[in-house]
Amino acid sequence: MRLRKLGLAMAMVLAPAAQADEGMWMPSQLPAIGKSLRAAGFQGNPSDLADLTKAPLSAVVKVGGATGSFVSDDGLVLTNHHVAFGVIQYNSNAQRDLIQNGFVSHARAEELPANPDFRLRVTTGFDKVSDKVLAAAKGKTGRAYFDAVDAISKTLVAECEREPGMRCSVVNMFYGRDFYLVKQLELRDVRLVYAPPRAIGNYGDEVDNFVWPRHAGDFTLLRAYVGPDGKPADYAKDNVPYHPPAHLQVAQEGVREGDFVMLAGYPGITYRHRTAAEFADQVQWRLPTTVQVMQQLQHIIEDTGRDDRQAAIRYASQLQSLKNGIKRFEGELDGLKRSDAVAVRHKDEDAMLAWLATQPQAATLRPQIDEVNQLVASANATRERDLLLSLMQSQTQLMRSAIMLQRLAHERGNPDAHREAGYQVRDEDLMAGTLRQVQRRYDPPIEKRLLTALLTRYQKLPDAQRLPEFDAAFGRTPEALSQKLDQVYGATQLGDETQRLAWLKADPAAVSKSSDALLSLAAQLQPALLRAENERKSREGDLLRLRPAYMDALIAYREKQGRAVYPDANSTLRVSYGKVTPLKARDAVSYEPLTTTAGIVEKNTGAAPFDAPKPLLDAIAKGDYEGYADAKTGTMPVDFLSNLDTTGGNSGSPVLNAKGELVGLNFDSNWEAVSASWMFDPRYKRAIHVDLRYMRWLMDKVYPAPQLLKEMGVPAH
Amino acid sequence: MRLRKLGLAMAMVLAPAAQADEGMWMPSQLPAIGKSLRAAGFQGNPSDLADLTKAPLSAVVKVGGATGSFVSDDGLVLTNHHVAFGVIQYNSNAQRDLIQNGFVSHARAEELPANPDFRLRVTTGFDKVSDKVLAAAKGKTGRAYFDAVDAISKTLVAECEREPGMRCSVVNMFYGRDFYLVKQLELRDVRLVYAPPRAIGNYGDEVDNFVWPRHAGDFTLLRAYVGPDGKPADYAKDNVPYHPPAHLQVAQEGVREGDFVMLAGYPGITYRHRTAAEFADQVQWRLPTTVQVMQQLQHIIEDTGRDDRQAAIRYASQLQSLKNGIKRFEGELDGLKRSDAVAVRHKDEDAMLAWLATQPQAATLRPQIDEVNQLVASANATRERDLLLSLMQSQTQLMRSAIMLQRLAHERGNPDAHREAGYQVRDEDLMAGTLRQVQRRYDPPIEKRLLTALLTRYQKLPDAQRLPEFDAAFGRTPEALSQKLDQVYGATQLGDETQRLAWLKADPAAVSKSSDALLSLAAQLQPALLRAENERKSREGDLLRLRPAYMDALIAYREKQGRAVYPDANSTLRVSYGKVTPLKARDAVSYEPLTTTAGIVEKNTGAAPFDAPKPLLDAIAKGDYEGYADAKTGTMPVDFLSNLDTTGGNSGSPVLNAKGELVGLNFDSNWEAVSASWMFDPRYKRAIHVDLRYMRWLMDKVYPAPQLLKEMGVPAH
Repeated sequence: MRLRKLGLAMAMVLAPAAQADEGMWMPSQLPAIGKSLRAAGFQGNPSDLADLTKAPLSAVVKVGGATGSFVSDDGLVLTNHHVAFGVIQYNSNAQRDLIQNGFVSHARAEELPANPDFRLRVTTGFDKVSDKVLAAAKGKTGRAYFDAVDAISKTLVAECEREPGMRCSVVNMFYGRDFYLVKQLELRDVRLVYAPPRAIGNYGDEVDNFVWPRHAGDFTLLRAYVGPDGKPADYAKDNVPYHPPAHLQVAQEGVREGDFVMLAGYPGITYRHRTAAEFADQVQWRLPTTVQVMQQLQHIIEDTGRDDRQAAIRYASQLQSLKNGIKRFEGELDGLKRSDAVAVRHKDEDAMLAWLATQPQAATLRPQIDEVNQLVASANATRERDLLLSLMQSQTQLMRSAIMLQRLAHERGNPDAHREAGYQVRDEDLMAGTLRQVQRRYDPPIEKRLLTALLTRYQKLPDAQRLPEFDAAFGRTPEALSQKLDQVYGATQLGDETQRLAWLKADPAAVSKSSDALLSLAAQLQPALLRAENERKSREGDLLRLRPAYMDALIAYREKQGRAVYPDANSTLRVSYGKVTPLKARDAVSYEPLTTTAGIVEKNTGAAPFDAPKPLLDAIAKGDYEGYADAKTGTMPVDFLSNLDTTGGNSGSPVLNAKGELVGLNFDSNWEAVSASWMFDPRYKRAIHVDLRYMRWLMDKVYPAPQLLKEMGVPAH
Repeated sequence: MRLRKLGLAMAMVLAPAAQADEGMWMPSQLPAIGKSLRAAGFQGNPSDLADLTKAPLSAVVKVGGATGSFVSDDGLVLTNHHVAFGVIQYNSNAQRDLIQNGFVSHARAEELPANPDFRLRVTTGFDKVSDKVLAAAKGKTGRAYFDAVDAISKTLVAECEREPGMRCSVVNMFYGRDFYLVKQLELRDVRLVYAPPRAIGNYGDEVDNFVWPRHAGDFTLLRAYVGPDGKPADYAKDNVPYHPPAHLQVAQEGVREGDFVMLAGYPGITYRHRTAAEFADQVQWRLPTTVQVMQQLQHIIEDTGRDDRQAAIRYASQLQSLKNGIKRFEGELDGLKRSDAVAVRHKDEDAMLAWLATQPQAATLRPQIDEVNQLVASANATRERDLLLSLMQSQTQLMRSAIMLQRLAHERGNPDAHREAGYQVRDEDLMAGTLRQVQRRYDPPIEKRLLTALLTRYQKLPDAQRLPEFDAAFGRTPEALSQKLDQVYGATQLGDETQRLAWLKADPAAVSKSSDALLSLAAQLQPALLRAENERKSREGDLLRLRPAYMDALIAYREKQGRAVYPDANSTLRVSYGKVTPLKARDAVSYEPLTTTAGIVEKNTGAAPFDAPKPLLDAIAKGDYEGYADAKTGTMPVDFLSNLDTTGGNSGSPVLNAKGELVGLNFDSNWEAVSASWMFDPRYKRAIHVDLRYMRWLMDKVYPAPQLLKEMGVPAH
């Protein structure tokens, strides 16, 4: 009943101008916001976009954690160069360097098989299973609610995957309000068809990452194959091209500033409908604290590495990853502050609650919303400890190995199907790999210093946050901690790879009773870690049960405001619409929304990452842009900028014009938009796309592949 | 006759639109280009600007190597914070840090005396002396021509300086075509009146140097004082404010994009009328080669400094200066390439010569122009050697000292007045200082490595460029060079400061016959150095004689094109005009021409150089901009951008509106404009100014000085 009422409500509301360009819409929502979509410039029928398992949206496929789309009836798939990079790398060697030189297949027989674990997924089913899931969890709370949802989901997935070639999953929308069973045809024979050289596909590399103006031709063409019977199959010479249920048509025309564009893809995760308290936690505590602790770890690695080159090399990757994380978190924090996100969200929530108080449903919803806030507050009560425990496991090598071995021993007591994810039989190869690579990433003095930093912070926590097992193990003073770590790391044999791998195979009882200093320490800590995990899952179960009330209130409040609500991103197919838009990035700095080939020459230094290949530079010097350049200005476009709503996972998303034709290929967003995972600020949120005129020109004039252009219905000039 | 004819020609020509914003015009040229000036928007009478010794241009004064202007009848002078920085520093100490806190004088008695060597110069005479100078040099060539011009100039200056308080100089326009005697009243009592804190005056510091958009309040107010008799005097308590012959009126209104602006100041040096061959030499050889050699020296210092901290400290300043030079040269090279300067200048010169061939004066001018090209070519024949000799003297410490001591001994054979500039009695203190500071800047292994790098390049030069004395001293092989440097640096006593200073006082004959290894080497090299110097001066004399023919041809050709010609900059007062102009800096990147206080907050990190003072941030938060903000947008301007033609020396130049009122204060140009000393490219050449509304607002609302605003005729609101 509640669901039906809100479904109806949604059909009635329109997105006003202020919200026009925000939104990662479920295709099923598009008919309801059809009037906005048409007002923005869409010329098709919004109802035609409602079913993601039917044309045209069925042409949009999942490629790893990103997106692609079919662009011919013979299974040709367009995605980003960086999304297909593994395929290009897999087919490259010193003799034939496809990364450096690119690849043009001139005939089907020349197309190169992808790495065997590369997958394309075509969504064939998207069914609401809220009734089944909620019925299974009904009356439960906490951990039991969590486990019930988990169990029924596993059952539904198992049933669904009985059909050969299918991969299924249960996803939840609006934080547990709605559940869907997603069914995807998994194509396993994918081949490389066309890739530009690295210096085109990734022109600018890290220097230009997150940067506009951009000049990369970040695209690659693949082809999906199936067995002669039309069913998914592993690579085989006799496989035949897959005929997709739908494909997109590449446009003959290009875009200009202000043009309507829309995009479909698989955005990964956003937090926009989190509560005001969660926004405050993120900005005021989580981001600054995480940055502070990570910087402390960074400095430990850097300081030690300055005098010890061997250690510096071993920790190079961890250091890089810390620095990337710090940069990204700082960017998110800057952005959220620039957008005054905490105050804006708080004001919005206050207004929602004030309005709710005047409504009949307040009696049901308000107590649940209050419970959500209590749960968030209870999580905050141990947030320092939880952050430290998490870093203790992600930023160490030997300690993490010991904890993993003890947890595995613990899980082995359960039937495989009931074990914690990551500790099932099928995960053992991965665990062995993790234990092996410790050898190249571990330096005892650095690990001890990292642990000292984290555990010193831990020792200073108030009593309520500390765990008796940790206090017993590490003591309460710096001296006790130092002595313990020296003793454990001095005595443990886990530094030896053979030893570590032997413990992976060992009897669970032997592991848990091991006399190795570090394994024994991990065994001592394990009850505390399991208790903390159980608390978290119990809270997550309750949040899954209660957040729908918050979402119900928000959706009803937005309805009153005349606005529709999209669910936060969760790696399911979404559609966003907007327009080709410039960016006023800073005081007196404006970026135009289209770049041109002149900018490639401007940036070119001849050295990577600005080392455009000679054939490209020659073609630009020649200026043969007939049929591709902007008719008015004569300039040849490269990339363009829009205000489309995207996040990680939208890489490779097709960008369509008002007629639904393919005009662009999404590949990045701007630095100012890093905070958009929490808040969409229309002043700064932009998405960066390859202009398909650039792709077509490259395939026509620079690295010709006329047969592919013909296959896509846009023949060479 | 020739002069009069061309003077007439200039009165008839107009600057067409294409050239409208290029030009550092002598004030006397302004009536002739008056129609262009008015067409550009100037509302006054161009004839009123013709005499730089009369109002209003007599309000523009020379401040050190830069510019300032009188802004009140009581001698108040407006210039840049960076131009007056020495004055601020001189009055700062740990107890009263004017650099950090700024300075506001509330009464005349509080005004602080500048460092005693600080000078303001008011131009009172600017008389053409071409007849006298050219008559003195007539019939001479080469070194004799050079010496004759030098001698008559010294005579004219000595006569002029007989009047107390005057500084005089002879300047040449159009490369020896015209000569002027400049007479300047030198004010020696200058006081600090108002300076913003460093974090306003130099907001952004090195990070923002050469950068637009900019947010610095780079201004300072000084006051000139004279003796009670109205004559220039050293600082004395009883001195009285100087009443300038004219002062500028600060405008009530501000500027917008597209508004007419003009600027007067003392640009230092430009090369725009150099020959096509000189452009080619600069771009194709001089800049890239100099960068290459300087980078080699940079790497030697860096590599040695990595393992030797003491050496690194000693060479920190030289290293910084090398890096700055490399950056600036690379910027100039990039710019000249971007503007295709060599081809553009070549095409222009070819067209000029083709046109000249059809004119009667070709018979006189063309042979002289050919001689100019031969002289340039002859200089190019030894350019590698000359560059290496010059770096050998500028980039070494002990070698340079030895060469200097030998040259001094040599010059001491002449009467003081005839000695080479820099080696006269009055220069001896400076030389002693140079010899002293060697102690803090010298490291034997680094100096030997730098010399090895330079002399190894020297050894590889073709025979025609090498000098017998150098070959004899350093041999022809790496081994001989290495052995010689080891021997000389092992044996010399010049590393000892007492020894160096003793040689400065020693008898010339004793110096030239010294048995010190390095002094003896310098004595051996001296004849070669003197010969090379004589060749250069002889060539310079001939160029001074012959370039006027090239300029005559160019001026006549430009007349035919309908364009006037300004002389290359030479530190004399020039006027340029143009408009407030945005900048399209790169593909898809546009900069608006006005920045706002919002940008200060955006850039602010709280740490230098982006650490705006609290009173400023508070005032911005308060937003009390009444009477200062842009009426239409409500934004408060900080700096603005114009296409005015400027170069080094224009710092502190007043920027005037169409009515001749003061609207801005020039303080920098953009990075893209570094190459403008050779070629003005209207796409990229911009000048950066403080918007005087920002200065007035700071002086009204943030660090109030109402009496100064009243004195300038723009009272506080």
